[in-house]
Amino acid sequence: MQYHKVTEEHIRKLQTILTTEQVLIEASQTKPYGSDYTEDLFYPPEVVVMPFTAKQVADVLLFCNENLIPVTPRGAGTGLSGGSLPLLGGISLTLEKMNKIIEIDLKNLQARVQPGVINQELRDAVEPLGLFYPPDPASKGSCFLGGNIAHASGGPRAVKYGTTKDYVLNLQVALPNGELIWTGADTLNFSTGYNLTQLMVGSEGTLGVVTEIVLKLIPFPSQRLLMLTRFENADSACAFIPEMMRKGITPSAMEFMETKAMQIASEVTGIPMSTDGVGAFVLIELDGNNQETLMSDCEQVYETLEKFGAGETEVAETTEQQEKFWKLRRIMGEAVKQNSIYKEEDTVVPRYELPKLFTKVKELEKKYGFQSVCYGHAGDGNLHVNILKNNLSEHEWKEMIPLAVTELFETCKILGGTISGEHGIGLVQKSYLPIVYSPTHIALMKGIKQVFDPKGILNPGKIFG
Amino acid sequence: MQYHKVTEEHIRKLQTILTTEQVLIEASQTKPYGSDYTEDLFYPPEVVVMPFTAKQVADVLLFCNENLIPVTPRGAGTGLSGGSLPLLGGISLTLEKMNKIIEIDLKNLQARVQPGVINQELRDAVEPLGLFYPPDPASKGSCFLGGNIAHASGGPRAVKYGTTKDYVLNLQVALPNGELIWTGADTLNFSTGYNLTQLMVGSEGTLGVVTEIVLKLIPFPSQRLLMLTRFENADSACAFIPEMMRKGITPSAMEFMETKAMQIASEVTGIPMSTDGVGAFVLIELDGNNQETLMSDCEQVYETLEKFGAGETEVAETTEQQEKFWKLRRIMGEAVKQNSIYKEEDTVVPRYELPKLFTKVKELEKKYGFQSVCYGHAGDGNLHVNILKNNLSEHEWKEMIPLAVTELFETCKILGGTISGEHGIGLVQKSYLPIVYSPTHIALMKGIKQVFDPKGILNPGKIFG
Repeated sequence: MQYHKVTEEHIRKLQTILTTEQVLIEASQTKPYGSDYTEDLFYPPEVVVMPFTAKQVADVLLFCNENLIPVTPRGAGTGLSGGSLPLLGGISLTLEKMNKIIEIDLKNLQARVQPGVINQELRDAVEPLGLFYPPDPASKGSCFLGGNIAHASGGPRAVKYGTTKDYVLNLQVALPNGELIWTGADTLNFSTGYNLTQLMVGSEGTLGVVTEIVLKLIPFPSQRLLMLTRFENADSACAFIPEMMRKGITPSAMEFMETKAMQIASEVTGIPMSTDGVGAFVLIELDGNNQETLMSDCEQVYETLEKFGAGETEVAETTEQQEKFWKLRRIMGEAVKQNSIYKEEDTVVPRYELPKLFTKVKELEKKYGFQSVCYGHAGDGNLHVNILKNNLSEHEWKEMIPLAVTELFETCKILGGTISGEHGIGLVQKSYLPIVYSPTHIALMKGIKQVFDPKGILNPGKIFG
Repeated sequence: MQYHKVTEEHIRKLQTILTTEQVLIEASQTKPYGSDYTEDLFYPPEVVVMPFTAKQVADVLLFCNENLIPVTPRGAGTGLSGGSLPLLGGISLTLEKMNKIIEIDLKNLQARVQPGVINQELRDAVEPLGLFYPPDPASKGSCFLGGNIAHASGGPRAVKYGTTKDYVLNLQVALPNGELIWTGADTLNFSTGYNLTQLMVGSEGTLGVVTEIVLKLIPFPSQRLLMLTRFENADSACAFIPEMMRKGITPSAMEFMETKAMQIASEVTGIPMSTDGVGAFVLIELDGNNQETLMSDCEQVYETLEKFGAGETEVAETTEQQEKFWKLRRIMGEAVKQNSIYKEEDTVVPRYELPKLFTKVKELEKKYGFQSVCYGHAGDGNLHVNILKNNLSEHEWKEMIPLAVTELFETCKILGGTISGEHGIGLVQKSYLPIVYSPTHIALMKGIKQVFDPKGILNPGKIFG
């Protein structure tokens, strides 16, 4: 597709579709929209637009469609696959001003929100009402719900509560033809034609722009219990999980951290943590409404841990202690970033296969001579593999590491998994898509893209190579 | 599309793609494939094919695609929207011989099954292993898992456990081009391109034919408690639900039955049931792993029921009593069918709006002079409205009732709901689709259909008018 550059005339027109203040053109203003949390990549937009309403979003899309200008939707810019980077310039469409919680519906246990609402803000708003919105990516304090939908985000609670997709009931979406549709209904059951709601979830802004969201809420579990346990190796750290679950215990979180990850997190936070003889840490959270049940579940977890050779296990008795453990886990991405430029691979396999995947990472580390730091959601088989640049040459970083990543992703495929569990494909993983999908499969996806966005103005250069 | 009739030559070719025994051509053999549970409709296929393998399914699709022969996939034929009826003749492709549970993976808590496995058979196979497959449509004893996927089936447990869509991890699908793809990965987290898995769920055999299924299993709740309670009217029967849920109690089922439905079920089963002064019955099931917690939850439910003016409440203490209550609920569809030809509308709204929907049904009953029997999943806002033909003339049945249904569906839309929660659109609801979707929305769906099935051989005449 031959796109057009943004002209003075286009800008004047955009200033009438929106207002002058909603159209940023100065390089100093547009620069921050050229990068996100993905490596050190930078692709500046020509213009940034900040719509206030769904109608404005739709009007901008229609304008871009008619003028063949690429438009890249943007949430908080916390993505790790480069989804919000305006690869071909054009317009960065930021949803940051559409940040209202429109309604918390206590009768139907639903929330109606705009896409620019921060994940944690919704959580904080519903908790005092006895309600819970479980999906909580590590970036929950800053990421937008719209971005969570774009990337089908998960988080530690997925093992018990599922991911973003399991809470999205209905979406208002602006299309390139300038129309707004609601993808489904505000209902839990739905069997009315193709599920466009779930097609939008994880579509990374390539099919339409989400302008309003109806989310399911559930009762807030009043009791939580958190344990940090140590294992000699990753194998035993994961082997106990199925046995525990077959006993009827589904933890609300189950996080895997290799020792190196814990050491870095401990250094950055200043929280002391003994790691001697430890191969892997597992953080186990149980929740519910009944303290006694929780304690009895906890005993069963202990028994299972013992049976599988766990080492020292600390129980966080207070909220403060719980926060300390969670802080260590949540800081890991940032802590790694402080050490080196890195690539974060979002590998995912059926949960019991996680140790095999981890073993493969360490084999590749030796074979290719890089350093990696691994942690992730053991309960979901989702392992974040951070490959550090450190002293690798530009050549090694750009030519050799992709070979290692290819081998890693091939292993995911063999183990029944795939190349992204919750970060999306975006820009940085798109060349690997053929590892998991056949040409026919990719052609079907591209065909769907063509139906929604025939001129290819929406987030061009993403998902597909 | 100009389709071809099935010729002698086509049949000979089909007999080589499969075997002679797998191709039924005698009218006496093909007749049963011309109807399902939908009203009294009958559209016989020209030929029935019974593939044993995914490869055979793919080969049949390729053959039909090359020869422009309509092919209608068929599960157990328990559908209520006419999805399996070969509207234009051609081939009925029955999945009844692909009925194996391939693997129950105790390490990853997954099941790998063929599409012709009966829902209850999977449930029975996993329960002794401490595992649970929650979606249980009323027809669970005969319906196929493949059909459950085609129609995004729900069932009473959806309020706590979700519907079929929430358990489908990965699907092998045969496409009209003769290829087989896996739609995703065997993982809980998934963010690798468009979610073709969820696009297939509810697509009613119009995009491809599901040939293998990977399902999520969860721990089996060891304790269950069932209560049958009575209310003066539907309003109070639904009003207590949100309060109960905000107390942290999510029932595992919450079924609404109007008194007339209970009377019919009581007559058919011979189970006595007092209905004096009762406007609506609600069946409430709680489940979990701890009897004490369950009893304490039960007390809270009682308190809430009292506050909202519930009448007599019976607790099913024994498994036998529980089965009796469930039998009354599950027999209702069949019981209504024994009384009269009927249409079953699968209306769904946000759960708190259910009484408004029920009131509307009763208004329409008076206005149009028909009789209706209503029951459904109150926890999900899913109300099955059975409109009885009784003494209505053919003219009234065919001309007047659709006007009533149109008004009913318009009400669903106004209340934030839609026209099918778990039965699908199929043949009998397709003319109503424009009530809930704009022309653009329908064009997007048709565009997707075109991508998967460019010649329109798959289940033609379904979903779209």
